[in-house]
Amino acid sequence: MYDGVIQELIDQLGRLPGVGPKSAQRIAFYLIETDSEVALELADVLREAKEKVRFCATCGNVSETEQCSICLDPKRELTSICVVEDSKDINSIERTREFRGKYHVLGGAISPIIGIGPDQLRIKDLLKRLSDPEITEVILATNPNLEGEATATYLIRLLGSMEITVSKLASGLPVGGDLEYADDMTLGRAFEGRKRVN
Amino acid sequence: MYDGVIQELIDQLGRLPGVGPKSAQRIAFYLIETDSEVALELADVLREAKEKVRFCATCGNVSETEQCSICLDPKRELTSICVVEDSKDINSIERTREFRGKYHVLGGAISPIIGIGPDQLRIKDLLKRLSDPEITEVILATNPNLEGEATATYLIRLLGSMEITVSKLASGLPVGGDLEYADDMTLGRAFEGRKRVN
Repeated sequence: MYDGVIQELIDQLGRLPGVGPKSAQRIAFYLIETDSEVALELADVLREAKEKVRFCATCGNVSETEQCSICLDPKRELTSICVVEDSKDINSIERTREFRGKYHVLGGAISPIIGIGPDQLRIKDLLKRLSDPEITEVILATNPNLEGEATATYLIRLLGSMEITVSKLASGLPVGGDLEYADDMTLGRAFEGRKRVN
Repeated sequence: MYDGVIQELIDQLGRLPGVGPKSAQRIAFYLIETDSEVALELADVLREAKEKVRFCATCGNVSETEQCSICLDPKRELTSICVVEDSKDINSIERTREFRGKYHVLGGAISPIIGIGPDQLRIKDLLKRLSDPEITEVILATNPNLEGEATATYLIRLLGSMEITVSKLASGLPVGGDLEYADDMTLGRAFEGRKRVN
């Protein structure tokens, strides 16, 4: 334990995701000991981010404007919506350059353990968007884990009665991976989803 | 890449030690997305820490006062000084309750690669403190790595002519460790420093 404000800084840093007590201590001392303005700049940008950043009124992506840059982009296709758990996921998908439609951020996944049900997610907003007849396809891109799969299953059932193509991202072996080290579930999915190539 | 202030926040967080681009992104979104005041509290404590925390005029430890609590403590022995690289190390040693003397923080270790020589460390201040005849022992507690060992060797030579007992922390197998997984250097040191027990 340290005195006063140093311990307070360590405690605050330790509340960040992925930052344990040791890392928090290391970061705190780095911030205190460096002569440069790193700490003050970080304080400023934290304040600024908290003031400026809000969520896109349409898709729920983080944005500094009423609507995010993707929703405002006239070049994006209006026919398909890719459903993701978090804003972060949009960035990952954008890097692939495989998708030119719009997004919808759920704000998490169904997880009874931590008390997140469908009502806590932005599912009603999604249904509202889907009432637009121009939209013909929904791509479910939730995480391939328990919560993400549960959310996808829930949405597949919910959207079943609508005249919309619903698809899910493919599961299988990661590119560059090694068959030997693939877990049973992944390898099983890879078999299940095998594609004929001739 | 994100827009504006979000990317700025990610960049700032990515400059912290041990925080890579992925962690920085994760922390940034956590700070933006949580409704609570975590981000603003962190901004405040960063500012406060940068304003309040300075370095003890005697030993170089972090402190909110002119002298640190250890230097001001009348119960600590005045006869021995433990030399460490960083303020963080003081905390580690204090937890062992093995040492009741005072400390001296060098502010790093000799490392020609990143341009740190003896002149960049608080060695002159150490010599000044050692001119006090009351001090009879110096314990070198630099890190057991290349830079720390180089610093210890430099100090051993420098203090050689003085009438002071100079010692170095023992090297050997870590408690709770497994001989099988010990690296050659550590095991070699453990042999070299073996203690007769009968």
